[in-house]
Amino acid sequence: MTTTRGKLAALRRLMREHQLSAYLVPMVDAHLNEYVPACWRRLAWLSGFTGSAGDLLILPRQAILWTDGRYFLQAEQELEGSGIELFRKDEPGVLDVEPYLRSIMKKDAKVGVDPRVLSIASAKLLRKNLESVGASLVYTERNLVDTLWTDAPEMPTAPIEVLSREQSGASTRTKLEALRTSMKQENADALVITTLDAIAWTFNVRGNDVLYNPVVIAYAIVTEDDAKLFLDLAKVGKEQQRRLSRDVTLCSYDSVRTELSALAKRKARVWVDEHTTNQWVTKNLGRCDLVTTKSPILERKAKKNTVEIEGIRRAHVRDGVAMVRFLRWLSVEAPKGHVTELSAESRLEELRSVGEHYRGPSFRTISAFGPHGAITHYAATEQSNVKLGSGVFLIDTGSQYTDGTTDITRTILIGAKATDQQRRLFTLVLKGHIALAQTRFPQGVRGMRLDTIARTHLWSDGLDYGHGTGHGVGAFLSVHEGPQAISPVRCKGAFIEAGNVVSIEPGCYIAGKFGIRIENLNVVVKDDKRTTKAKTWLGFETLTLCPIDRSLIDDSLLTPSERQWLNDYHQHVENTLGPLVDDPQDRDWLTKACVPV
Amino acid sequence: MTTTRGKLAALRRLMREHQLSAYLVPMVDAHLNEYVPACWRRLAWLSGFTGSAGDLLILPRQAILWTDGRYFLQAEQELEGSGIELFRKDEPGVLDVEPYLRSIMKKDAKVGVDPRVLSIASAKLLRKNLESVGASLVYTERNLVDTLWTDAPEMPTAPIEVLSREQSGASTRTKLEALRTSMKQENADALVITTLDAIAWTFNVRGNDVLYNPVVIAYAIVTEDDAKLFLDLAKVGKEQQRRLSRDVTLCSYDSVRTELSALAKRKARVWVDEHTTNQWVTKNLGRCDLVTTKSPILERKAKKNTVEIEGIRRAHVRDGVAMVRFLRWLSVEAPKGHVTELSAESRLEELRSVGEHYRGPSFRTISAFGPHGAITHYAATEQSNVKLGSGVFLIDTGSQYTDGTTDITRTILIGAKATDQQRRLFTLVLKGHIALAQTRFPQGVRGMRLDTIARTHLWSDGLDYGHGTGHGVGAFLSVHEGPQAISPVRCKGAFIEAGNVVSIEPGCYIAGKFGIRIENLNVVVKDDKRTTKAKTWLGFETLTLCPIDRSLIDDSLLTPSERQWLNDYHQHVENTLGPLVDDPQDRDWLTKACVPV
Repeated sequence: MTTTRGKLAALRRLMREHQLSAYLVPMVDAHLNEYVPACWRRLAWLSGFTGSAGDLLILPRQAILWTDGRYFLQAEQELEGSGIELFRKDEPGVLDVEPYLRSIMKKDAKVGVDPRVLSIASAKLLRKNLESVGASLVYTERNLVDTLWTDAPEMPTAPIEVLSREQSGASTRTKLEALRTSMKQENADALVITTLDAIAWTFNVRGNDVLYNPVVIAYAIVTEDDAKLFLDLAKVGKEQQRRLSRDVTLCSYDSVRTELSALAKRKARVWVDEHTTNQWVTKNLGRCDLVTTKSPILERKAKKNTVEIEGIRRAHVRDGVAMVRFLRWLSVEAPKGHVTELSAESRLEELRSVGEHYRGPSFRTISAFGPHGAITHYAATEQSNVKLGSGVFLIDTGSQYTDGTTDITRTILIGAKATDQQRRLFTLVLKGHIALAQTRFPQGVRGMRLDTIARTHLWSDGLDYGHGTGHGVGAFLSVHEGPQAISPVRCKGAFIEAGNVVSIEPGCYIAGKFGIRIENLNVVVKDDKRTTKAKTWLGFETLTLCPIDRSLIDDSLLTPSERQWLNDYHQHVENTLGPLVDDPQDRDWLTKACVPV
Repeated sequence: MTTTRGKLAALRRLMREHQLSAYLVPMVDAHLNEYVPACWRRLAWLSGFTGSAGDLLILPRQAILWTDGRYFLQAEQELEGSGIELFRKDEPGVLDVEPYLRSIMKKDAKVGVDPRVLSIASAKLLRKNLESVGASLVYTERNLVDTLWTDAPEMPTAPIEVLSREQSGASTRTKLEALRTSMKQENADALVITTLDAIAWTFNVRGNDVLYNPVVIAYAIVTEDDAKLFLDLAKVGKEQQRRLSRDVTLCSYDSVRTELSALAKRKARVWVDEHTTNQWVTKNLGRCDLVTTKSPILERKAKKNTVEIEGIRRAHVRDGVAMVRFLRWLSVEAPKGHVTELSAESRLEELRSVGEHYRGPSFRTISAFGPHGAITHYAATEQSNVKLGSGVFLIDTGSQYTDGTTDITRTILIGAKATDQQRRLFTLVLKGHIALAQTRFPQGVRGMRLDTIARTHLWSDGLDYGHGTGHGVGAFLSVHEGPQAISPVRCKGAFIEAGNVVSIEPGCYIAGKFGIRIENLNVVVKDDKRTTKAKTWLGFETLTLCPIDRSLIDDSLLTPSERQWLNDYHQHVENTLGPLVDDPQDRDWLTKACVPV
């Protein structure tokens, strides 16, 4: 069974056995990870499509893959000859999964799905759509793809590490106490945690089970007098076991089912965040009374404590030194014509890897020259890889250090003089970046209300960018972390709070020509000058330390206050990084890059 | 039965007869009007509270009024001695109506309400809350208050007028065709319209049944081959009848019930916007299949056609002339010390009333001197009325003309020199106003995304205002009109579209000292310079014509571009109004008020 057609035929035989009219294979796994571990990449195994987002629907005589604009081209190529049709999400006239199913399913039809790979909320939506036409949703005991996929990779086995109080800034005991307080307010007997970064934060554990995210595959259940962590016990060394066992009962990964059934038996009131918990958990909770509101972990995790913030600052200093060494190297080597997108990416990783506490990239680097810079989520491949010539190079890249997670984008001019258009657009993006970075705002403001501030300079030139202005970032955790976001669409996003770490990353993309983005991470801080008894005021403090390319700035477009921000920023970068840059040539480059405009 | 205590006792007897544990009396009427006609002001009759927003709950041994911050003081005074408790909405620890009912109602308790005075959505919310504790919601056939209120005022009887095509810019036939197209898309056999401004717009009728809003009390039902308008037929003159009858079947107000029952009998699929239609309608529709999504009228009504926009412009010219005459009068008379808040208000109305097509105020004028200016929704009474002395005077005021509705706020310095604080805050408000007025933005942006633009200058001084930045305005209709709004909270508001008329009105309020607000109406226009084939760009064009008080501006805080906007605006005001201001002294005042800064 090596071809997609063969696999689909086998799956259809299983569907007939289960009397299913359709079988749905979403991309996600049981922990709703952004990056799905190899052992659970069922959609890719079945269809050949390797993008990071999609849903596959198998019907008796048809198979359909839904994916979004980032992956249209890739999906077309990877699906060729598979017999799978591509449905382009959000294109005019293209129905999404649920309305499509509603439109084709007949009365009494059964649509199968593994309840592990649907959140409670999406299961509810799917069920509602099917029931509106008299069809039903059937949860298969085992994932039908797993039945066929006999040579699936094993689950990851890397050992876990337990963060010390000096690293995490808050003990597991303290965190559990806070969660129990929230549980009491909701009258919840138990809290089930399924997202891996929430588990990593609560139990101060880190692992190596998921690409880019230092997390451990696990479930957790917190009750008033216990906290059970369900994971592969072989990953837990003696020392880790000793440290965890003070507050935590360690259990095998599979035994979570027994524990859920026990909760079901005593009809406990159980808290399961409907957007982050899978439907399989609910199924096993039987007739328990459920609290489905937002997990009490999200907002706590997003408000970094002072130890975390200090760690994040140190990580940014190390990352900044690597960036300076990289950019100096680039300024020397790229004009010689032999640097490629891929070689630049690996050179930067090499320079970072010598830094203390380095653990690897926090996401796949976007190393994009010229027109590639205008492609959102571009990732260079051997096929697409180009040499950096004369023009604009965009690099969006980040690292995991055990004391912090980084994420930075710089747009660099290589070779020739910048065109007027390049300088104007770069400067408008910079003005938007500075406007938001300088904003002071009252406590109680959602990110959506701040997003526009970074756009108005571009808007006045009739330009815009098709992505959010900023996302939350974890502390040695996921580089994309909620619940807050500075986004034009997430209107129910959380308030921006002191201690949040968020990116500011406006951009401008000219298809077929180049892309511009300037991204710094920031920590939200209390503004003591403006804060009164009645009202707390907040502002941003920049964490990222790396020069912004002055050769792309048209300084005649800057106001005195913008100029001041830029010069202050560069002076801070030079003062902080200068003493740590060993090579005199690197130091010299840094000094020049930080000259005031 | 003249005392509140007596009325409450009588109502409690009725509750016992109906076996009700509670009776709810919301402020609203069957058409969910912003201003409730006298005949339906049941809450005021029963409780003595005359504010414009509130809910009254009568329990066997308790009665509670909920109202919001605007009315705390007034409610305390008006409820004194009534035995009714005041629940202050949105204060910490104060439960709202639904959660409070949930907290006190026992299993099998029955809560009564007139289904006419609840929207479908609020009825659903109330029912859900009661059912969660085993209680139920009971709809009384007649409003219990009406049973007691034997001397209630008659329903208004003023005749209606029918707008000509030259006034409305679009015939009723054209509008009905468009609605029928939307109905087809939703597979709806009928559309029930209950909000009075939606009826006024659809049928091009205007009336005089509601304070400030030129509407007629009516229901309407549109089907594929008919459009029935249910109203007091005595209001319809011969000529009006002739003009309407081409496209409309006129029916008596009460016969809407029969018509709803007829729809129920044939099990029609009926469109009832759940936020603007009352629950009584749904009740009479029995087992009809309901479409409860947003009314197809809202967005159409908000996009003014060119005839409407031209009318609105003309109305603003007339209103501007009256404002100039008023402000000149104020500049002469106020320093003499005999002008009061109330006399200023009536003087302005007098000056406006000589203008062509004038029909009265579009809302109760806020004429507020000094500390009163810092009170949101202040309305001067004989008790609160003060003389205008030396200081800051805020006037927020608007008119209904048969060709347009106006709404303007000006903040005027009277007497002495402005303080540094007054000038700084006025200028920050002005900068916010100008920033938004100058913004260009792509089609597809909700008002919430624009709101912040008017705030950032205040934010950087640690200041903010507790209201939205802008609201939609009708064309000779309601001065507050959805579905669009420039608001920090209405995140699901509609996109801002070309043809929308919206206010821009940032402010700043220093409790106990003064209030500042600068409000102009604007029409949203397509920006041809920026619009491409792929994307439409939009901007604001100011409609309001009236000088902004230069003596409150600190021009050292203005950027060249802000200064340019202000001088251009003043020049436009002078060029447009100058030739229409007859009195040479008024003209002279205007010229001086429009001198460039």
